[in-house]
Amino acid sequence: MSKQQLLVIKIGGNVVDSAAMLEQFTSAVAAIDTPVVLVHGGGKLATELSSKLNIPTQMVEGRRITDSETIKVVTMTYAGWVNKSIVSQLQAKGCNAIGLSGADAKLLPAIKRPVKTIDYGWVGDLEAADVNTTFLKQVLEMGMTPVVSPISCDREGHLLNINADTIARTLAEALSNIFQVRLIYCFEKKGLLTDIENDNSVIELINETLAQQYKADGTVSAGMVPKVDNALGALQNGVHQVVIGHANDITHIAQGAAGYGTYFTL
Amino acid sequence: MSKQQLLVIKIGGNVVDSAAMLEQFTSAVAAIDTPVVLVHGGGKLATELSSKLNIPTQMVEGRRITDSETIKVVTMTYAGWVNKSIVSQLQAKGCNAIGLSGADAKLLPAIKRPVKTIDYGWVGDLEAADVNTTFLKQVLEMGMTPVVSPISCDREGHLLNINADTIARTLAEALSNIFQVRLIYCFEKKGLLTDIENDNSVIELINETLAQQYKADGTVSAGMVPKVDNALGALQNGVHQVVIGHANDITHIAQGAAGYGTYFTL
Repeated sequence: MSKQQLLVIKIGGNVVDSAAMLEQFTSAVAAIDTPVVLVHGGGKLATELSSKLNIPTQMVEGRRITDSETIKVVTMTYAGWVNKSIVSQLQAKGCNAIGLSGADAKLLPAIKRPVKTIDYGWVGDLEAADVNTTFLKQVLEMGMTPVVSPISCDREGHLLNINADTIARTLAEALSNIFQVRLIYCFEKKGLLTDIENDNSVIELINETLAQQYKADGTVSAGMVPKVDNALGALQNGVHQVVIGHANDITHIAQGAAGYGTYFTL
Repeated sequence: MSKQQLLVIKIGGNVVDSAAMLEQFTSAVAAIDTPVVLVHGGGKLATELSSKLNIPTQMVEGRRITDSETIKVVTMTYAGWVNKSIVSQLQAKGCNAIGLSGADAKLLPAIKRPVKTIDYGWVGDLEAADVNTTFLKQVLEMGMTPVVSPISCDREGHLLNINADTIARTLAEALSNIFQVRLIYCFEKKGLLTDIENDNSVIELINETLAQQYKADGTVSAGMVPKVDNALGALQNGVHQVVIGHANDITHIAQGAAGYGTYFTL
């Protein structure tokens, strides 16, 4: 028997920061027939709140250095306001959402990132083998849509800030044992572009060889490198399909319609 | 067949605001054998955060007036930091906690409080009949401990601030259809006191007639009046037992040990 389809969808700041986009996005997700696990980042809200509270924001290679005050701020914004705003909007649109952090129900047991050259503070790493897929499967079988915030905890009960792209990939990999998983990364572009200035230059299909080429020639650079590496890594670890595209195109991407987003193959 | 026992335990600011007390309390709860649903308030954190953000805090009869900025603050603190701190501490102590707001999984559908003489803003009211007991029962059967924050939403997706005592009572009443429920209100005193200055003047047993007497003579006054009314109302609506006592005594109260807390009967 073939596995049941499941979509793991990740949204970031461009959706979370805009009330109008979030409204449109939650309407689109509520209308998707396939079961969905939604993972969200935090957007600018944590940075804005830190700024109002005079807590300095330190970023290294796109990652937030998370000191004791900052873990409070990100837990409040990500697991609190952003998570519950998404849940309540989905509920209002008839989608039975349940907001979860990685700490809840042992969903995503994490380990505080060891200090090497950089001390990231209260930042966590994950292992796909540790994901509580049994619980997620039960929640999905109850007809619910898990909405996962990028916060978890370690065995000692320390809350940890986790990269949302990593959570989406880890969940997608772990759930591939049970479901045929399509992992969809939504961001502010229509896909990987050969020309960053031209929204119509979307690369429709990319594989590992092409990805290496694009990284070498600089077409894929900066923040896109980890996204591409995540996508290819997920495929190598059993995820059926990975797509990167615009949040506004989620309805088409969820349907697998041609002409929307960049599709990854091995 | 007699119903299975369940404890609905409510904690407030005195536990949530003190790292040492929360540590002790979560250790005690993790060691309780009977299934538990834990409901928490928000403590001073929301007021402190509002103050740092220059959002005025307005209280009327002990209830927070919740404007558009304040609902953000309380959702961040209650559903975010406080909820996830409790969950991660319980997890570290071997208790498989799952943090939920009333918005998650349609746990506690709410209605925005109608404006009469006072406009409470984004404050919600509940109906015991609307509680998603099916979901809670499933979560409890999975061996998990729900940790409920005092936030929910209405049908239009507006997040609402809900009184935590009311949530505990509503959950206890609704779950009494399935379980034999003991509702335990933890606060900063050892029980109802005949002499507020004397911690050893605990009223061990109280019924409706005595309660009316104590309210009439002022022994029960101010913030204790709604607590007593909640307790008696819960008993009238099927809750097996209600106890009000000190959070530090939770181990004894959970065991029903004599000499700890005030027990309510009809």
